[in-house]
Amino acid sequence: MQGNMMDVPLTIPFILERARTIFAEREIVSLLVGGRDEAGQPIPRKHRTTYGEVANRALRLAAGLQSLGLQPGDRVATLAVNSFRHLEAYLGVPSGGFVLHTVNIRLHAEQIAWILNHAEDRVLIVENVFAALIPAIRAACPRIERVFVLGPTPQPVEGAEDYDAFVTGHEPLARYPQIGENDAAGMCYTSGTTGNPKGVMYSHRSTILHSLVSAPKDALNVGERDVVLPVVPMFHVNAWGLPYTCAMYGAGQVYAGVFSDGRSIATLLQDEAVTITAGVPTIWMGLLAELDRARAEGQPYDLHRLERLVVGGSAAPESLIRAFEDRHDLSLAHAWGMTETHPLGTASGVPVGVPERSDEGYALRAKQGRPVPLVFLDLLSDDGERLPHDGKTMGRLIARGPWIASGYFKGEGQGNFFEQGGELWFDTGDIATLDERGYMHIQDRAKDLIKSGGEWISSVDLENAIMAHPAVAQCAVIAMDDPKWDERPLAVVTLRPGMNVTHEEITTFLAPKFAKWWLPDATAVAESIPIGATGKFLKRELREQYRGYRAGGGEQG
Amino acid sequence: MQGNMMDVPLTIPFILERARTIFAEREIVSLLVGGRDEAGQPIPRKHRTTYGEVANRALRLAAGLQSLGLQPGDRVATLAVNSFRHLEAYLGVPSGGFVLHTVNIRLHAEQIAWILNHAEDRVLIVENVFAALIPAIRAACPRIERVFVLGPTPQPVEGAEDYDAFVTGHEPLARYPQIGENDAAGMCYTSGTTGNPKGVMYSHRSTILHSLVSAPKDALNVGERDVVLPVVPMFHVNAWGLPYTCAMYGAGQVYAGVFSDGRSIATLLQDEAVTITAGVPTIWMGLLAELDRARAEGQPYDLHRLERLVVGGSAAPESLIRAFEDRHDLSLAHAWGMTETHPLGTASGVPVGVPERSDEGYALRAKQGRPVPLVFLDLLSDDGERLPHDGKTMGRLIARGPWIASGYFKGEGQGNFFEQGGELWFDTGDIATLDERGYMHIQDRAKDLIKSGGEWISSVDLENAIMAHPAVAQCAVIAMDDPKWDERPLAVVTLRPGMNVTHEEITTFLAPKFAKWWLPDATAVAESIPIGATGKFLKRELREQYRGYRAGGGEQG
Repeated sequence: MQGNMMDVPLTIPFILERARTIFAEREIVSLLVGGRDEAGQPIPRKHRTTYGEVANRALRLAAGLQSLGLQPGDRVATLAVNSFRHLEAYLGVPSGGFVLHTVNIRLHAEQIAWILNHAEDRVLIVENVFAALIPAIRAACPRIERVFVLGPTPQPVEGAEDYDAFVTGHEPLARYPQIGENDAAGMCYTSGTTGNPKGVMYSHRSTILHSLVSAPKDALNVGERDVVLPVVPMFHVNAWGLPYTCAMYGAGQVYAGVFSDGRSIATLLQDEAVTITAGVPTIWMGLLAELDRARAEGQPYDLHRLERLVVGGSAAPESLIRAFEDRHDLSLAHAWGMTETHPLGTASGVPVGVPERSDEGYALRAKQGRPVPLVFLDLLSDDGERLPHDGKTMGRLIARGPWIASGYFKGEGQGNFFEQGGELWFDTGDIATLDERGYMHIQDRAKDLIKSGGEWISSVDLENAIMAHPAVAQCAVIAMDDPKWDERPLAVVTLRPGMNVTHEEITTFLAPKFAKWWLPDATAVAESIPIGATGKFLKRELREQYRGYRAGGGEQG
Repeated sequence: MQGNMMDVPLTIPFILERARTIFAEREIVSLLVGGRDEAGQPIPRKHRTTYGEVANRALRLAAGLQSLGLQPGDRVATLAVNSFRHLEAYLGVPSGGFVLHTVNIRLHAEQIAWILNHAEDRVLIVENVFAALIPAIRAACPRIERVFVLGPTPQPVEGAEDYDAFVTGHEPLARYPQIGENDAAGMCYTSGTTGNPKGVMYSHRSTILHSLVSAPKDALNVGERDVVLPVVPMFHVNAWGLPYTCAMYGAGQVYAGVFSDGRSIATLLQDEAVTITAGVPTIWMGLLAELDRARAEGQPYDLHRLERLVVGGSAAPESLIRAFEDRHDLSLAHAWGMTETHPLGTASGVPVGVPERSDEGYALRAKQGRPVPLVFLDLLSDDGERLPHDGKTMGRLIARGPWIASGYFKGEGQGNFFEQGGELWFDTGDIATLDERGYMHIQDRAKDLIKSGGEWISSVDLENAIMAHPAVAQCAVIAMDDPKWDERPLAVVTLRPGMNVTHEEITTFLAPKFAKWWLPDATAVAESIPIGATGKFLKRELREQYRGYRAGGGEQG
């Protein structure tokens, strides 16, 4: 017996239409590069437009792409920062029936070319600040037929055309093509810390569902009266879906472009009366330092409109959450996800009856949160058995839901997906705990876990605790080989200016919080810790660097 | 090109599982009938349970129904008020693979029997307070195999079994059946003011999407920290979906059972610290009177936790919205929908830049609001042409979206659905305006519109204005035949205690707000206005009653 509800496919044109009509007057603010100072550093120029104008241009872009002879499902790549023009591509490319492939600008040129070739992109849209890459890309990517440059360039770029001229040269799309809800809409490659990057193909359906599930207050709390600044890049898992969620609900958007330092972000948050912002922990560490500095100098920012800083990408230590609350009355809220999960899988919050600023509240808020509706999480042992949800047992985190990948482009990486009891599950590669109330706590990437005497030690837990030490700026904990225990933890730290720390100070600092056998065997002070294109520590590289390191053999050990 | 997202069907067991696990401790409060006073009036008894307990019993109910030999898609009817047991049926019946058919308890016994037969229900679940109906229903509905009674009865009911015994007599369902997202989950008959009632079949998919779209702050604003009292009955369009939305997001629920008078509702709102409540305008008129009374007597209710009173079913006059704001600092927010729209189609709110309590804000809030995501509204002329969205042009309101009916059970009422440009639309039968920003304003039911000299006059607009007159308690405006203009408006009013009003006073009161030709030609004072089973004026009956009435011929005309 079927219901008798309309068969209306869930497609991105529905978002575009809301932006074009109901929310036509709502503002989109972008920091563009308005020039260079004497040191060659970019100078910001503020640009203001509206959803109505963006929607109109998105429809012109869609019509223009159709005029090029692109076929439904063809990929259009972007190499771009956050701006209103990128938003036009978000709305226009899928609404024309094509697939928006956002490429990470922080990758090396060869990696970019590899990904463009692998995705078989036919059109490439490039931010003007990266225009210098175009000749090399054109040479390496013969499948790319047309290249468009976003924003002005000092002189014409060979092999590329002006995006604005292309857009304004076409009338808006008069009629949307037939789009099925399972048709591909967006594409994003995993960061690929192991092996080649793999492509995840979001569908129209998954994008709409993800937008619906992101809006409620127990997720990101987006509505028409909000102004949202996604610091997270639009080339990184669709800026956590915020451009779509905001357009669906009419929230104003503020884009920082290339300006993601603490001062730029703090100024934007204040001047544009931002209510919600989202980014990785390093961004918030930069912002915290800037807010502290401004307050110390007697000129604090006015951020009273800011209700929520969403943090994801990697875990924010409890000390960071407390610092924002205690020193600036600002609320940092975890969300968790991956490229393969669109990304929203869990959202932070405390259950009814637990005060947000109590010790229990902070402890819960330092976890990744509970699953949003329609996402299911579970834990697997190495033998493939389901493990208890007791808040203690660590297991491989597996996930299932309508906006979670069922595979990668071209059928690669099938080992990450498995069927159990007739259901398909995605193996996240993370080690986590789950508790009775559904709170998920990432312990580690499976490959970063330290296996000591048959037991597991979470490098992430140790890192978060060590980063609360006043002398420590950054910390990565990695496994070092050990003849007796197989592996033992090594803490690699960078120091705050003018500070120092000994291994004994670190272990004394940690002792009240951890079992004795969890404490690192050594602490190494480094100038810097290598960071990858998505802002995460490159632990593989670090392990390589410290191969053969022994407790007592280092400068601090 | 397909996306590579998991093919996870959107089904109600996902809601049940959240209630069973993450929100197991969250409370469900029900007012049950604990006895009768000397006058035979029911005495309330407060019952407390949790989502965990409700989910467990829902799974037992599902297993019990399977044990009866019911097949997937078979209908299970309820004749019940709002309570935790009804919530068990909401979650358990569809999760067992069956269809929950909620029947309006306010219909006559013959109408109920007609609907049960038409739906081919196999099982009937009846509230104990309506147990007296069971013998007649059993006699008239031979297809019904089993009848279960909710709650205790003074003596066993012939032909019926105890629901609690049935539920506790089965182990919880061990494994959900295979359910497709387009499978039927719920069924509700339209009120049928013209012709026989017609069945609308909600699907699992439409129920999930409706729950997702109801939660955000620009819709109903439901989250885990909320306590929601749906005064709207669970037999009426799924209590506007709130039982499902609340269970999905973990909001506490409070059910008033048979107690919907102002004092009972005000007391529950206060004692249970309710944050969101929802009902038809007559409920809020009753609540307003009670709040006024309590304040006048120096014992005002403490409703500081109450953030939103959602009003739907019919339009709330601006005067009612202002009265709640001005006298009690409470916010009344319109939502609009119908049985055929699940029901959420629009939600009220003011756009950015318009203060809620400004004249423009109140004027916008007295409209039905703007479409929620994925719902599209448009206006048709009598010739089937699309009409402008200018806030002035009245047209037939048509709707389209993934939780809007594509037809009725057994293929009836096909005239309400039509295809245009390859898209299916539902003709609501309402006359409305739409403006540039998407605000929809119901002017009238098409059949209630007054056609005067080829122009349309909205009976609803006149009613809302007349009800703001201090002497008027209720008002229905209907067409009376007119030899010159075809039809002219007649205002039928009931008076507040001790008050009186003349036709001249009414027209003088209306004159500043309406064109002269809109003003009623006559005002008739009545003892009461007939109201149907869903709380709306029975204008057909009223027109019959006042057939041949002439201006100047009545007691006030």
